[in-house]
Amino acid sequence: MTRETIKEHFIALQNSIVLALENADTKGKFKTDLWERSEGGGGITKVIENGFVLEKGGVNFSAVYGSLSNNVAELLHVNPDSFFATGVSIVIHPNNPFVPIIHMNIRYFELENGEYWFGGGIDLTPHYIDEVQAKFFHKSIKAICDKFDSEFYLKFKTWADSYFYITHRQETRGIGGIFFDRLNELNTQLTKERLFDFVMELGHSFAPIYTHLMQLNSNKEFSEANRRWQLLRRGRYVEFNLIYDRGTRFGLETGGRIESILMSLPLLASWEYDVKVEPESQESFTLNLLKQNIDWCN
Amino acid sequence: MTRETIKEHFIALQNSIVLALENADTKGKFKTDLWERSEGGGGITKVIENGFVLEKGGVNFSAVYGSLSNNVAELLHVNPDSFFATGVSIVIHPNNPFVPIIHMNIRYFELENGEYWFGGGIDLTPHYIDEVQAKFFHKSIKAICDKFDSEFYLKFKTWADSYFYITHRQETRGIGGIFFDRLNELNTQLTKERLFDFVMELGHSFAPIYTHLMQLNSNKEFSEANRRWQLLRRGRYVEFNLIYDRGTRFGLETGGRIESILMSLPLLASWEYDVKVEPESQESFTLNLLKQNIDWCN
Repeated sequence: MTRETIKEHFIALQNSIVLALENADTKGKFKTDLWERSEGGGGITKVIENGFVLEKGGVNFSAVYGSLSNNVAELLHVNPDSFFATGVSIVIHPNNPFVPIIHMNIRYFELENGEYWFGGGIDLTPHYIDEVQAKFFHKSIKAICDKFDSEFYLKFKTWADSYFYITHRQETRGIGGIFFDRLNELNTQLTKERLFDFVMELGHSFAPIYTHLMQLNSNKEFSEANRRWQLLRRGRYVEFNLIYDRGTRFGLETGGRIESILMSLPLLASWEYDVKVEPESQESFTLNLLKQNIDWCN
Repeated sequence: MTRETIKEHFIALQNSIVLALENADTKGKFKTDLWERSEGGGGITKVIENGFVLEKGGVNFSAVYGSLSNNVAELLHVNPDSFFATGVSIVIHPNNPFVPIIHMNIRYFELENGEYWFGGGIDLTPHYIDEVQAKFFHKSIKAICDKFDSEFYLKFKTWADSYFYITHRQETRGIGGIFFDRLNELNTQLTKERLFDFVMELGHSFAPIYTHLMQLNSNKEFSEANRRWQLLRRGRYVEFNLIYDRGTRFGLETGGRIESILMSLPLLASWEYDVKVEPESQESFTLNLLKQNIDWCN
């Protein structure tokens, strides 16, 4: 299981997801940008704008290497050493407010001294929560986790609830999903090969899960009030990504490629002062479910 | 010069600015919200939305007191003690892309042990930089500074260039202005009364400066391309406020009133992937001036 093998599988995954999304969108095409990092490595950024279903999104691959600065080593709680890091990151903002925002990331990190780990996660941010679809999402993820370790889903679901939390709003970002980091053969029951299989299976689940949600919702009619609510929820997404998201902040602080990192921000977002929602409305129903520790698999 | 006096003058300033802005806007009215802080004190938030010239903005007053937590004391580099803090904060986002965004803040902080300081600043963020207006802005501020200390303008202008900087974009937020903090009679040539006069004179300069810029620009015709550029520049403003602005982050971390803190965010902002501007365009001209250390008073 060399870094080259992992990298090649990640690139193949990126391509297969892009094809599946273009196919489901029926109109939009991803644009490809190759970029190099002066200190070593680079990436392939694939961005869609103005699709039929997808308003804006990115499916990004990167593989970078070099020396960890003391600063970054401290952030990661490891000794300064030569490192290699590769991953696939996705954020999608759809046009129709009834199609959820989605994010997925899988990553592999390796130090010269042989230490390595896998990390990643997938989480869903519906502008309007549909309980049936929320359960479909969580159960799909749980089925993958269960194939590898019966404790993964609950552990990583709890981790996602805690990670994707907008503290100052006292709201979760959406309905969560799973989040995990620093997995290796020392802290799991799995070999490196099995952990790799786990992140790849998660990666390959992205397109079928999300294209299903696109198909279920993208032809629903929506009002100006629905669109306004969507832009407000996107404002929360921006708040999370710029204030809390470790990947974003780590990228900005370590001089990553800005346009690839900030592809996660929506084409349009809105902030209004002190928005109140109608009791019993769809908006109020959604807000009431933006909480940690909801069991979506019962 | 008691805290009560300072507080009363700040409230009177807030009211006079609101009146001047409503008068210049001709349509919009500010909405007033009083709020209390459970640990002591509170504020008066005044927000305008959907004015004729002003799309969204806030003119906020607060006066809070209590015990500094160890955390906050450490952030401020002072010993934990009882504190009192009061200030006026303004951010205005106009409708017309040729009217600049503006921000002003003046504040007073006092510890039980008698230590105190004044802080504040004013800075302008034109979506399109007009050199004549940029000079008018800086010269107006310099004239106030010069009345109190001939070194203030250059010192505080340099401070603003460094503070209002979006590191990951390698851009200043706008054309800057002045920024200062921790001024007291020990580190300036001025008495507490004169320092108070300085921040009040700065505060009273806000309305005449900004209403002049409103009047010069708010009837200019603009295209969809100008509006699109405005929303992209507002995206940068959001990035600065959520990632770097110490007031915002301090407020969020210490449990301030979220809706008052985040009134600084625009009604609409936009992010597009890897935007390129035409050479020789107005947009390119503006980007070339988003740099530190430009002398706007020559």
